[in-house]
Amino acid sequence: MNTKENSTTRLVIGKPNIMDREGFIRDVNEILDTRIFTNLGPFATKLEAMVCSYLNVKHAFAVSNASVGLAMVLRAMEFRAGGEVILPAYTFIATAHAVIECGLKPIFCDCDPHSHLIGVKEVSACFSPNTVAILAVNLWGLACDVQGLQSFADEKHISLVYDSAHSFGARASCGRFLGNFGDAEVFSMHATKLFNSFEGGLITTNIDSIAKRLVPMRNFGITGQDQVSCWGSNYKLSEVHAAFALRQLCNIVKLVECYRENAKLYTRLLNEDSVPGIRNWNEHFLDREGCTHSYFCLEVQPNFPLTRDEVIARLRENNIFAKRYFFPGLHKCQPYARTHEGLTLPVTEKLCAEVVVLPTGSTVTQADIERVVNLLKEFSKSPRQQNMNTDSEISIDSSHISEKLRYMRDLKHRYEELIKSCEQDICFLQARLPKIQGE
Amino acid sequence: MNTKENSTTRLVIGKPNIMDREGFIRDVNEILDTRIFTNLGPFATKLEAMVCSYLNVKHAFAVSNASVGLAMVLRAMEFRAGGEVILPAYTFIATAHAVIECGLKPIFCDCDPHSHLIGVKEVSACFSPNTVAILAVNLWGLACDVQGLQSFADEKHISLVYDSAHSFGARASCGRFLGNFGDAEVFSMHATKLFNSFEGGLITTNIDSIAKRLVPMRNFGITGQDQVSCWGSNYKLSEVHAAFALRQLCNIVKLVECYRENAKLYTRLLNEDSVPGIRNWNEHFLDREGCTHSYFCLEVQPNFPLTRDEVIARLRENNIFAKRYFFPGLHKCQPYARTHEGLTLPVTEKLCAEVVVLPTGSTVTQADIERVVNLLKEFSKSPRQQNMNTDSEISIDSSHISEKLRYMRDLKHRYEELIKSCEQDICFLQARLPKIQGE
Repeated sequence: MNTKENSTTRLVIGKPNIMDREGFIRDVNEILDTRIFTNLGPFATKLEAMVCSYLNVKHAFAVSNASVGLAMVLRAMEFRAGGEVILPAYTFIATAHAVIECGLKPIFCDCDPHSHLIGVKEVSACFSPNTVAILAVNLWGLACDVQGLQSFADEKHISLVYDSAHSFGARASCGRFLGNFGDAEVFSMHATKLFNSFEGGLITTNIDSIAKRLVPMRNFGITGQDQVSCWGSNYKLSEVHAAFALRQLCNIVKLVECYRENAKLYTRLLNEDSVPGIRNWNEHFLDREGCTHSYFCLEVQPNFPLTRDEVIARLRENNIFAKRYFFPGLHKCQPYARTHEGLTLPVTEKLCAEVVVLPTGSTVTQADIERVVNLLKEFSKSPRQQNMNTDSEISIDSSHISEKLRYMRDLKHRYEELIKSCEQDICFLQARLPKIQGE
Repeated sequence: MNTKENSTTRLVIGKPNIMDREGFIRDVNEILDTRIFTNLGPFATKLEAMVCSYLNVKHAFAVSNASVGLAMVLRAMEFRAGGEVILPAYTFIATAHAVIECGLKPIFCDCDPHSHLIGVKEVSACFSPNTVAILAVNLWGLACDVQGLQSFADEKHISLVYDSAHSFGARASCGRFLGNFGDAEVFSMHATKLFNSFEGGLITTNIDSIAKRLVPMRNFGITGQDQVSCWGSNYKLSEVHAAFALRQLCNIVKLVECYRENAKLYTRLLNEDSVPGIRNWNEHFLDREGCTHSYFCLEVQPNFPLTRDEVIARLRENNIFAKRYFFPGLHKCQPYARTHEGLTLPVTEKLCAEVVVLPTGSTVTQADIERVVNLLKEFSKSPRQQNMNTDSEISIDSSHISEKLRYMRDLKHRYEELIKSCEQDICFLQARLPKIQGE
């Protein structure tokens, strides 16, 4: 099977983007011409300026990825060592890793079953005199209750940082863009994100003192010519990464629109028939303008004939790259499981068992979405099965084999080309050798 | 003056590279087509395989930059908190920052005035019962006394890590490529390096247990599907960065050759007249085959009519981007100056005061080098109207041709081996494919 010919393979690889390829290739050529490859060159500088302008935020820092961005922010806050940071257990592992990287203690809270987000209720259950900060996560393109969390943080005199990895372009219920809340926010521009720079991240803040500490931290602590004033590392975004992000930023409204349209289409098609046992998370936020729907996720509930993992396995057999997310919850991953033994977070555990994330993005077509929904409807009618592939192992379907086979053949071909080029060089060198030796 | 029109502006921006631009643009298009943007895709995988093959080292990890690479290695060594690490004060600040990032204590040693490197003499002066490691730096494309340092580390039961940021393609006096020494080595692929990926780094090691710890650390501690076993962050190299490095790796012999030829030309021109008060570091290593001369540096001694900083200022007036390096020495930069108050390192301080690094690289022309040397001669005496009248051909002696021929044959052989391994994979995959499809 030639996967390149098959439209559904577009579902396999993640989230591509609406972009001006010709424009980007021009940018790459410009970068090669000027030979300004990194160190906050014109593309990174322009990206930061445009992000500030688009989000209407005072400071934006383009960094190598969101993980290091989170660690930078936590270091810039200068918390006392061992201070407790409250964060959800239903998020990507990088959120917690940033906390321990900075010598802080993660305290995992549960989340709201409706929104999947943490709010004042969940945070206050974990608050202690050792709490130094809340690290809230704006999941799936939806904003937390930013006002409630800010009031709580203010009342308790603790900091509030947002991991907005999923949510560039999303807005809080007040209408203001994310990027403007808490002490600082961190966005991901990883390849899998709606708005991406291959690899990359963005830190935004309206607080000058935090921005001032972030500047040298990104670049080895350098504060002037031959002047190093503090610790820092290399967290810079290269020019080619920045250029890729910039090309997308020009299309950001269209991009967000496209994800929203996908969520609407999934919802409409699902609602055409009754599909009991499927809860459509996105449906509840379709009329909330600020949600980008950068992920499309369903909950496969116990009354569905297949388990969630069976649904994923069956979709993958059909070459549809569905995924579970954040399984089995941060409190059950190492190194946290050791220190949080016995911790039970019912909502988190339910979501870890039930959520399936389906393909969305700008190259997912209406036909693709129809196909996915039709399969789900087909599954819903199938008699309840014995567990097939349950547990944590999701079987690899043959499309992966074909894909890998194609890659290996391609690689072999490239090596053959390289050998040809070696042979040419060898001929050339051999021809030169006696001439020089004869001199 | 329109600097874009001026050929000497090629000296302004640092170290560009011999590369196949068309090939790289094809790679970028391929990445956009396949939409595999990162997460150790085919380009990063191939880069690592080719680095292993070229350096003849067991493990290579492409990472986002050398700074995070150094911190990864120090974390992978699992030293006790507060352990002392001996490193030179005459190096880039990132070397020390990696030490404190990992909760270790930097102990700055002096260096050898001839080679600018640290050796057993300098390290043993700093050894204490709290020493856990030596972090030696292979500066300017020259290798340290790897045998001496290894014997010392073995005798004292401490670790030995190399910061080889400057020295991809360099070889130790035994003829073996750097990348094979100590417990691990870290190379930079930053834009300013001979061999670069815009932003990037490489870790190499022959020790399986270290490699095993590095694998998950680069990717969030992930060790399997939905399995996180330890701390980790995002230190991956994107595909577009890897592709850029790969295009240069195909030309690495030519690249290194070009830097060596520049060093020879500088030296020959400087030696045509007496230039008292200038010591040419590179001259002393021109007959040492393993040195890449990835930097060209002179020491402006007290008997020169201008100070080093005046030399730099005058060169810059002429649009030549000369630089001092590592000024004022790590022990005098923050946050180290506070904890190392009163520490005096005479050789380091002399080098910080005297070294000037001049432009080199693949786009620096013979005319550029002539111009720089003529200016230096002008500074040293009264200016002379002299026609340098040097021929445009850079002489290549036959030993280099033989060496290159050997390398090309070896490379061809390695590609043949890689093809065999591809063929095995293809057979294996083909055997699996019909079986799965038939199920």
